[in-house]
Amino acid sequence: MAGGTISFARGAPSADILPHEQVREAAARALAEDWETALSYGVGIGHPGLCKWVAERHGHYDPAQVMITNGSLEAGAMLFAQMVRPGDRVVVEQPTYDRTLLLLKQLGAELVPVPLEADGLDVGALEAALAEGPIKLAHVIPNAHNPAGCTLSLEKRQRLVELAGEHGFWLFEDDPYRELPFEGEPLATMASLDHAGRVLHASSFSKTVSPGVRVGYIAGPEVEIAKLSKHANETYISPNMLAESIVLELCRSGELDRNIEFVKGELKARCEALVEALREQIPEAEFVVPQGGYFLWLDLAEGTDTVALLDEAKGEGVSFVAGPDFMIEGGENSLRLSFAPVPADQAAEGVRRIAAALERVRSGSPA
Amino acid sequence: MAGGTISFARGAPSADILPHEQVREAAARALAEDWETALSYGVGIGHPGLCKWVAERHGHYDPAQVMITNGSLEAGAMLFAQMVRPGDRVVVEQPTYDRTLLLLKQLGAELVPVPLEADGLDVGALEAALAEGPIKLAHVIPNAHNPAGCTLSLEKRQRLVELAGEHGFWLFEDDPYRELPFEGEPLATMASLDHAGRVLHASSFSKTVSPGVRVGYIAGPEVEIAKLSKHANETYISPNMLAESIVLELCRSGELDRNIEFVKGELKARCEALVEALREQIPEAEFVVPQGGYFLWLDLAEGTDTVALLDEAKGEGVSFVAGPDFMIEGGENSLRLSFAPVPADQAAEGVRRIAAALERVRSGSPA
Repeated sequence: MAGGTISFARGAPSADILPHEQVREAAARALAEDWETALSYGVGIGHPGLCKWVAERHGHYDPAQVMITNGSLEAGAMLFAQMVRPGDRVVVEQPTYDRTLLLLKQLGAELVPVPLEADGLDVGALEAALAEGPIKLAHVIPNAHNPAGCTLSLEKRQRLVELAGEHGFWLFEDDPYRELPFEGEPLATMASLDHAGRVLHASSFSKTVSPGVRVGYIAGPEVEIAKLSKHANETYISPNMLAESIVLELCRSGELDRNIEFVKGELKARCEALVEALREQIPEAEFVVPQGGYFLWLDLAEGTDTVALLDEAKGEGVSFVAGPDFMIEGGENSLRLSFAPVPADQAAEGVRRIAAALERVRSGSPA
Repeated sequence: MAGGTISFARGAPSADILPHEQVREAAARALAEDWETALSYGVGIGHPGLCKWVAERHGHYDPAQVMITNGSLEAGAMLFAQMVRPGDRVVVEQPTYDRTLLLLKQLGAELVPVPLEADGLDVGALEAALAEGPIKLAHVIPNAHNPAGCTLSLEKRQRLVELAGEHGFWLFEDDPYRELPFEGEPLATMASLDHAGRVLHASSFSKTVSPGVRVGYIAGPEVEIAKLSKHANETYISPNMLAESIVLELCRSGELDRNIEFVKGELKARCEALVEALREQIPEAEFVVPQGGYFLWLDLAEGTDTVALLDEAKGEGVSFVAGPDFMIEGGENSLRLSFAPVPADQAAEGVRRIAAALERVRSGSPA
């Protein structure tokens, strides 16, 4: 193979776009000015300054409605553990983030699959599911979906919030990619449209600062946040105060916004290079062109086995995640490509290798 | 009251002994030399360099037997969730850390109380409990016990490890205060004496670096660590890589050991001042003189109600934690004093306020 493996597998940026100098400078400032908070025990909600900053960023939250967590996956895991009992019907998008499926299965939830369309969750299918019985919670990734790459339309956001209020289910808006639209401003969050107090909103600094800082948050009705925070305190006392102090310094100094602009530019270039290469080299591929974030979800011709393709692809020096990982059932002819870790000038070579692997599995002559 | 409240309540150092300059310098070095690991996703075990350092520090572990966690409380919470099923009999020391009791109760464990003696757990009482039926796990804080202040003797450590091997129960050696003996070297860990693979050992950098870094670890049989690490990865992907990179830099550079020497000196002075003040001002108080760590456990005369005393004490401008918080039942005439947050020159005044409150509750004329 030419060069090392090109990995479209992991939902993580390549090291060359991690803002290490800015983080180093922010750490120096945070540990000069905020060291007492950074180095002491906090409480379950985490750094109060960061709670306040997040509340102001959203504009409609009180700081007491915000809890900082060790990444937003943990926020979701705690929320599920708090709200979901065995047998509860929980709506999941299809496809969806694999760890979400795993966490909900471990809790004994009855998963209710709802398909995604080009503009997000199929609301008609959700309404049909509601007609069959009560739903406890719906998990929705509204922006630059992982793995599907689609973004939920404003109209659907409004309708989902209405349905949650009418039917009394919790809407978990799992939104780590919100700050990364390639053009324009992100659409209104469902949390901002919610007047019934049914939306829990989670997001993260993993994609806007760096994954290693493990700083995310969850926000919503104060009584639910208070319960989550009590559980957090019983389990780990407080989340990471040092990392939160550094992230807060990046937020306050404007470095976060500068980095978001930089990262969006890089991601957009990576996405465009991938889309162009796919159109040229795998013309059968069908996909929604991502408007932000990290991921592109690709359907190949019916009958393609992407698990077998992945096996072959690894031999060609390229990797991705096969579709079935994100599905309760099905997904055999689909796969997820993460463009975040692949510099634009490597996209064509990566796709060339996938195309070569595809040809091999179809010709029945694997390497 | 003279000055602000003097709090013997919280198991945390006062800010004046947090090594903020050293952490700031370590952060600068870590983010210059190790930024790629510090800022990227890791896996469930955390920073591999820190796993290796911990293994070498102990001397008898392979790095694959070590998993870094967001503080050692979380390590214990994950271990309990992995091992304890409703109805399992779990040995807890009496008194013991309040969050341990809470976590085990939430899991539906049957708590089997075993009293503490001046040299740690009453092994005869443990043997009696074993004679009554199988034990799943025993939770033991071997050094500078929280809240009891006692240290488990070497002889008892050896016997506990033997019993765990013979009877096939797990021994959870919860050891955050190990590095803080006021004189000499810490006794051998039970983990180092264990040939049957029954000991899980947890410790923390909260007391040797700072609580806000939220870095702890758990070590033990590789198969158990692998299960814990899989669960960690499913719940939060990886623990805090940035804080771990900074802690590792403190470890490697020798700053950790220098800080341990400094902190031990401060804690020893604080403990001595407290002991002296208690002997002078509350001569009825019975306690084991701590040989390290943060805590002193104090028994007052039978019939004293330390919950009422605490109420009165707060009015006098002093606080502590009343005994019942650390007990399944009883503890009414006991209380825990944490000397870690109280500078030596404030100990006498703090004890004077407790003595005044004691006199008030006994005279039946509370303020």
